[in-house]
Amino acid sequence: MLIVQKYGGTSVGNTDRIKNVAARVAKYRTQGDQVVVVVSAMSGVTDNLIKLAKEIMPLPNEREMDVLLATGEQQTIALTAMALHALNVPAVSLTGAQAGIVTDVVHTKARIHNITPKKVHELLKQGNVVIVAGFQGETPEGQITTLGRGGSDLTAIALAAALKANLCQIYTDVDGVYTADPRIVPTAKKLQEISYDEMLELASLGAKVMQSRSVEFAKKFGVVFEVRSSLNNNPGTIVKEETKSMEGVVVRGVSLDKNQAKVTLVGVPDKPGVAARIFKALGDAAVNVDMIVQNVSHGSPDKVGATDLSFTMDKPDLLKAQKVIDRLKKEIGLRDVITAEKIGKLSIVGVGMKSHTGVAGKLFETLAREGVNIDMISTSEIKISVVIDLAKGEAAMKAVHAAFIG
Amino acid sequence: MLIVQKYGGTSVGNTDRIKNVAARVAKYRTQGDQVVVVVSAMSGVTDNLIKLAKEIMPLPNEREMDVLLATGEQQTIALTAMALHALNVPAVSLTGAQAGIVTDVVHTKARIHNITPKKVHELLKQGNVVIVAGFQGETPEGQITTLGRGGSDLTAIALAAALKANLCQIYTDVDGVYTADPRIVPTAKKLQEISYDEMLELASLGAKVMQSRSVEFAKKFGVVFEVRSSLNNNPGTIVKEETKSMEGVVVRGVSLDKNQAKVTLVGVPDKPGVAARIFKALGDAAVNVDMIVQNVSHGSPDKVGATDLSFTMDKPDLLKAQKVIDRLKKEIGLRDVITAEKIGKLSIVGVGMKSHTGVAGKLFETLAREGVNIDMISTSEIKISVVIDLAKGEAAMKAVHAAFIG
Repeated sequence: MLIVQKYGGTSVGNTDRIKNVAARVAKYRTQGDQVVVVVSAMSGVTDNLIKLAKEIMPLPNEREMDVLLATGEQQTIALTAMALHALNVPAVSLTGAQAGIVTDVVHTKARIHNITPKKVHELLKQGNVVIVAGFQGETPEGQITTLGRGGSDLTAIALAAALKANLCQIYTDVDGVYTADPRIVPTAKKLQEISYDEMLELASLGAKVMQSRSVEFAKKFGVVFEVRSSLNNNPGTIVKEETKSMEGVVVRGVSLDKNQAKVTLVGVPDKPGVAARIFKALGDAAVNVDMIVQNVSHGSPDKVGATDLSFTMDKPDLLKAQKVIDRLKKEIGLRDVITAEKIGKLSIVGVGMKSHTGVAGKLFETLAREGVNIDMISTSEIKISVVIDLAKGEAAMKAVHAAFIG
Repeated sequence: MLIVQKYGGTSVGNTDRIKNVAARVAKYRTQGDQVVVVVSAMSGVTDNLIKLAKEIMPLPNEREMDVLLATGEQQTIALTAMALHALNVPAVSLTGAQAGIVTDVVHTKARIHNITPKKVHELLKQGNVVIVAGFQGETPEGQITTLGRGGSDLTAIALAAALKANLCQIYTDVDGVYTADPRIVPTAKKLQEISYDEMLELASLGAKVMQSRSVEFAKKFGVVFEVRSSLNNNPGTIVKEETKSMEGVVVRGVSLDKNQAKVTLVGVPDKPGVAARIFKALGDAAVNVDMIVQNVSHGSPDKVGATDLSFTMDKPDLLKAQKVIDRLKKEIGLRDVITAEKIGKLSIVGVGMKSHTGVAGKLFETLAREGVNIDMISTSEIKISVVIDLAKGEAAMKAVHAAFIG
């Protein structure tokens, strides 16, 4: 079997941990598997390099940032190869460029264009474990690039696709994907499998297992991957295209995002272009707006219809959003602006919702029974999110988990 | 003017020093010069990487060592480019591979095969300062290599040759090459110029300004270079092919190597192959033998002629040498083995010796006047070395410097 394994920064955080990684890789190889290992920079290394760069200038050139940061993963590949040698396992390291990972020229957040893993195939054929630097590639002109946050996952999944690997394992410091955060919901279960779409919704809901772009890439190229822990031998969660059997489960997971804030604009004039103006200004100020809910228009004193418009964003963006709104308030003619920080966004996710009715009703009923008031509602084909009082968030989550999952 | 400047690990030891380097480079550029900067790893970085590797295994694979160590210089090039950007000077960093430095495949001590500095020329033409990672290159097959000790000097000199640079400056923490170590001889003067051959002799005599191989490379390709300090603006020492005027100076420099030890083998049978056996065994044990002196053969009790054979080596190698000799003692039939650690090797170097007579006589006379006994003598065309009592080394050096230089 050809397996691609990815180990994150914590899993290779010091030389002892690198030795552990090598031992795990060696075990698979002894079973007769061919193994390609993708590693991140040792935890702390990237941050330290960023610190050095900031000492030199606050906003360093992005091309040079890539030259600098790519060294972190390059160090790990060499050390990991050595750790395999220490176990008498033949191993060769490759930088992203050497592994044939070609990207566009958008430095610090490059996209993978194509992978020509000729060298990887050659080395595997010779009996080597191949260690590839995650998070990096090179442009067709030979410039070093990095792939941005979650880049090493992306390297692993893209390599698995290019190599037509039988298995892609993403090793991390959690056991897999859970039906809910086990620290909040003790009855949460590790999922054996989850669909790409469900994983994407959970990723965007703050379940910090993986970045959305890696899951999107896996979905696009049909790469089945497993999220599992580098600290034990438990099987993890398989992420793959949804199957008929998955649809039998209505709700795959429940999440609670405590890190959101809400702004309500009261009396937004009901004229074309007003909403566009507001959200363009917020976008220009780099406010990452999440949910948007607009109430039904109702009459206002000055004859022009007016609506109430609420939106949520990550809490740290609230200050920026307030500045933007203050600037626009008069210009647009808002009656009032109300902000709320003590909110939680509770979501249920499941591909089964597509074929099941009454899910929303059951959710609202469960919340009502808990005395939880619903502030905003937003739905997609496979997700329902509600904004509620933060203080009631965890109790609500437990109740919803119990109602849908058990 | 096209200038290649090389800055060592101390000169780029922290971000403040990197900013200083950038300021100096910017000054040359403001004068209208084109500048190519070669940098080493920040001091401490390489040692730390070696430490990590040794934690994983005592004798790490050399290919992987190169992948690991090359990251040190790659970090410095990015940071140096940023520091130039901070001064509004356009600058682009290149790894050894990107700069077109092609080497053989002898990992950790690769030799430069050829340089195709197409990219460097292009970037210079566009008005950039080009920052090149010292100490590294790549094989024709795209493997990362490093050049071994003194590798960054070699990169600078080889680049200067390939680019046909007008000037090559080696910035270090000393002001240039001196007639003697100023800490021992207060009247020592900084040399304005010195020939390659003199510099080579001084390098091998422990004047630790530069490794011999970089000087040899410069001599071979006729690269004139200047050794100077990165801490001030003083002119340094120009190293170049010897000129007629150089021959007017009999002695360019005086050196004292206190780090040698001596072994004398008494009664070495005067048969063919005995010396070969001894020095092959020493070589196999990695004892780096320096001077060898064999006395005139004299009769011995057992009819076979016998000679006394003395050799010197670096002090740390003495123990290894003793072990080898102990093993051979009986086998070869040595009468006795005498070791001495309290010795110094005093040398005078100068191309002028070729055309001047009486230099040796004057040296011996000077030493005699100081009451210094001469233990061993070794000469080359442009050098005379004597082994003397370590206790009298510094006084002897002062006297010799006074007699020949002033």
